[in-house]
Amino acid sequence: MSDTKYTIGIDYGTLSGRALLVRVSDGCEIGSAVLDYPHAVMDEYLDTGDGKIKLPPDWALEHPRDFLDVLSTTVPKVLAENNVSAEDVIGVGIDFTACTILPTYADGTPLCFTEKFRRNPHAYTILWKHHAAQPYATRMNELAVERGEKWLGCYGGKVSSEWLFPKVWQILSEAPEVYTEADTFIEAGDWVIWQLTGEKTRNTCALGYKSNYTDEGFPTADFLRALDPRLENIVAEKLTGTIVPIGSPAGYISEKGAELTGLKPGTPIAACVIDAHAAVPAAKVASPGKMLAIMGTSTCHMLVSSSNRPVPGICGIVKDGMIPGTYGFEAGQVCVGDHFAWLAENLAPAEYKKAAEEAGQPLLPFMIAKAAEQKPGEGGILALDWWNGNRSVLADSDLSGLFIGMSLNTKAEELLRALIEATAFGTRMIVENYRENGVAVDEFYACGGIAVKDPFTMQVYADILGMDVKVTDAKQGPALGSAIYGALAAGKKGGGYDSIDEASAVMGKEPAAVYHPIAENKAVYDKLYAEYKLLHDYFGRGGNDVMKRLRSIKNDVHFGK
Amino acid sequence: MSDTKYTIGIDYGTLSGRALLVRVSDGCEIGSAVLDYPHAVMDEYLDTGDGKIKLPPDWALEHPRDFLDVLSTTVPKVLAENNVSAEDVIGVGIDFTACTILPTYADGTPLCFTEKFRRNPHAYTILWKHHAAQPYATRMNELAVERGEKWLGCYGGKVSSEWLFPKVWQILSEAPEVYTEADTFIEAGDWVIWQLTGEKTRNTCALGYKSNYTDEGFPTADFLRALDPRLENIVAEKLTGTIVPIGSPAGYISEKGAELTGLKPGTPIAACVIDAHAAVPAAKVASPGKMLAIMGTSTCHMLVSSSNRPVPGICGIVKDGMIPGTYGFEAGQVCVGDHFAWLAENLAPAEYKKAAEEAGQPLLPFMIAKAAEQKPGEGGILALDWWNGNRSVLADSDLSGLFIGMSLNTKAEELLRALIEATAFGTRMIVENYRENGVAVDEFYACGGIAVKDPFTMQVYADILGMDVKVTDAKQGPALGSAIYGALAAGKKGGGYDSIDEASAVMGKEPAAVYHPIAENKAVYDKLYAEYKLLHDYFGRGGNDVMKRLRSIKNDVHFGK
Repeated sequence: MSDTKYTIGIDYGTLSGRALLVRVSDGCEIGSAVLDYPHAVMDEYLDTGDGKIKLPPDWALEHPRDFLDVLSTTVPKVLAENNVSAEDVIGVGIDFTACTILPTYADGTPLCFTEKFRRNPHAYTILWKHHAAQPYATRMNELAVERGEKWLGCYGGKVSSEWLFPKVWQILSEAPEVYTEADTFIEAGDWVIWQLTGEKTRNTCALGYKSNYTDEGFPTADFLRALDPRLENIVAEKLTGTIVPIGSPAGYISEKGAELTGLKPGTPIAACVIDAHAAVPAAKVASPGKMLAIMGTSTCHMLVSSSNRPVPGICGIVKDGMIPGTYGFEAGQVCVGDHFAWLAENLAPAEYKKAAEEAGQPLLPFMIAKAAEQKPGEGGILALDWWNGNRSVLADSDLSGLFIGMSLNTKAEELLRALIEATAFGTRMIVENYRENGVAVDEFYACGGIAVKDPFTMQVYADILGMDVKVTDAKQGPALGSAIYGALAAGKKGGGYDSIDEASAVMGKEPAAVYHPIAENKAVYDKLYAEYKLLHDYFGRGGNDVMKRLRSIKNDVHFGK
Repeated sequence: MSDTKYTIGIDYGTLSGRALLVRVSDGCEIGSAVLDYPHAVMDEYLDTGDGKIKLPPDWALEHPRDFLDVLSTTVPKVLAENNVSAEDVIGVGIDFTACTILPTYADGTPLCFTEKFRRNPHAYTILWKHHAAQPYATRMNELAVERGEKWLGCYGGKVSSEWLFPKVWQILSEAPEVYTEADTFIEAGDWVIWQLTGEKTRNTCALGYKSNYTDEGFPTADFLRALDPRLENIVAEKLTGTIVPIGSPAGYISEKGAELTGLKPGTPIAACVIDAHAAVPAAKVASPGKMLAIMGTSTCHMLVSSSNRPVPGICGIVKDGMIPGTYGFEAGQVCVGDHFAWLAENLAPAEYKKAAEEAGQPLLPFMIAKAAEQKPGEGGILALDWWNGNRSVLADSDLSGLFIGMSLNTKAEELLRALIEATAFGTRMIVENYRENGVAVDEFYACGGIAVKDPFTMQVYADILGMDVKVTDAKQGPALGSAIYGALAAGKKGGGYDSIDEASAVMGKEPAAVYHPIAENKAVYDKLYAEYKLLHDYFGRGGNDVMKRLRSIKNDVHFGK
């Protein structure tokens, strides 16, 4: 046991989980360990352990066993590699993608761990980007509008197919046997904490942003009965557990949790926070007018405001949802880095792969470097960044991707560049939507994998937004934020901090790089943005619903209609 | 010398030239020899022999030396390989892409063969699919509409950027030194014949379809002066040469021509025919209501009719343009196989390339086989087949490509399938456009590389058109047609035939395969066609000119504006 104290932030992303060891006195990131989920994202086939089951379109599952594997490998590893004793870890924070839920028995055992449900896709973890619940979201939305449900105003006026109620309702409708057998449906982040502490809790962050939980609680039984009589008592029966506000301890490491992780029994664990939201204290953007974009497979845009104003097309406005004492506004792009990875995985020609290997470079950065050789507008290609639907400002999972402007000279890297630019245009739509609705966006911060690793993309964002882009040097924004919440859970008497402001000020990071807009690029991008907006509104706001009809034809073929 | 007589059809395509040896008595295809053009299509860089010059967007050049190489390699080879003596070759026919023109001196020497012009892109062969003359075509079109030029009615009401006048005007405007130095501008097919016979001729087929040459001759000097005063005397000064109707001999092999090819001096050579048009007698589709699609890098749609009716958006209506005594209607898709090759060359992932190599299969058919595994509509992707603009029915080179409907599960072969389907939808647009304008299309024939080699694509065409697709077994439709014209040039007294009807009846081919529409596929494709049409009209008829604006931004960047 030494004088130096640490916390561990465990960040569960879409494809991997990582443990970040942080020094409490100054926020120094001592080291990290990562595990790629062994089952990755299952979006084409469910791996049942002894075979594969083809999944319908728009599904996305994960295996809860992978989440435990993250705990048992990364925590011991990061401690061992940095010669830190578990005695010196004063707290743990966990962030997780959301809404990522699973059905379990009363003792926390996931249904998919049992022989009975091992082959039932509905029994697995339904990942945030599972979009097959869109019909349920659409119906829930219609009913909420019809009845003038007050909570709808906190969600940009629209229910997303990514959220808890549409997802659970899909299970109820398509696999009632899973719904009936499940004692609870729980966010995977809360489930992980349950495994570590033995206590079932629910965090206010995911409840607020993803489960329509507002000052007045969950949607009423009356509303839920009108939606589907079988849902009337879901809150009382299947959404139980102690509600824990962010910044508070959700519990303490149990003997079983200690065995799994090598941590000391009794170590406090902070209430889970959604991965993107955890980055806010890490980047020190706790005051109004500062937007923080957490850029990875998807991007979340965080903004705090002293007042609550309804803004259409954003994901959620939750009081104390990010920073105590303010309203946390969240908007998002469901697919950002996922686009770039899709292109590199599916459309990179063999000679690029070979050249990248010879240069000892991963394929994607190799292709981004090729894309960077051109000037803005030179490729003549525009894209709509909707490969996985649109979260803000259209909130429509049924939208899909578009490329326009190809010629016979078009190269793969030009399509990649168009995708990078399209995600930046999508961010500009979100910024302008806030401004049009009276919420200031004066500064733009970025963190996450893309922000740190991809200077070309960040320059494109600065050029397209016409704003400085300030990149925080936290290697892992969300993981550092979780470590900060871990210090808060420990409290001053446990060696940590008593207020988020203090913890954030000491352990958070100042921007390490700033990208300034280049006037010449901005001038071309302003023209391209006007084109993007025209296509965005035409395909996204009912001018031509071809994307929805193509999806419906595709679904009909899949289901043999 | 034997009793069996032969003709040779020499087919100059976009990427290669081939000589087909045909038996006159029954049209049997004895053998063929091919040469890929050593310089291929130069659309990114001009190969000057000692360096490379970057070409502006939308350029496409060829090197005339390649055309001579085809003569000196393929003709001797096909004779030697089949043990046929030059004595037994009674005639030669040549078909060539058009409008594919080059500037030469009075003795036929191309300007690009000289040290003075070797580095000047304007001095090379301007290929049919060179599209950088669009501004000139647009202006010519406006003026013709303004003045009510009668000839415009023969061209669907629109001048194409692919034709002679816009291309020559571009040279005059951008490289006046080339224009001034050139004694003549000539179709490459007529130039090849000039090299073989020593006589400068011009064929009525290319004149009619590509040089606005109608019953009343070329556009008047008055019109040309109004276009650009420097063009006033172009016809008298630079478009000279004997005009030879198709089916007649353009001349006879000279001593020099014999040396080049190994053919006998005095062998008659038929007037050149455009490559696609040469396929008409080969497929025996000489009567009204039968559409013949010649499917290769691009597709031409040939149809003869006993009466002349104006049809908007087609390429040309030329009396005796295909078959003496009828009006030849031509429509076309500028980019068909080019789309598929583009995808395989630029977007095929490394593992497909590897798997194709292991299967000993070229990459494109390997990918088509993968695309064929899905059902219609299953990929959810739609494309607009405008990677190289649109020839019919929009006649607009400034249009560009579109893909819509992509998700993160989209694979390269799904994009390929969407391109295949889009070209079939484009063909259906052409067929329906004829019908709406009172020209019957009752039967659909196909020939060319795609028709013969790609059964999946032909089934897609049958399903999308809702018509039987009859594929002629001529291995090379245009080359066989050229051989038929060669027999016509020889005439009965030279061992050939005196009428095209007789020659076509004996030497042409019956369909060897027929693809019938599959009702279930047709039902889905009818829905997708409705979506295609909606996008086609929105982007192609002024609903949103984003494609033109993207092109204009791209050009501004290229030219540093």
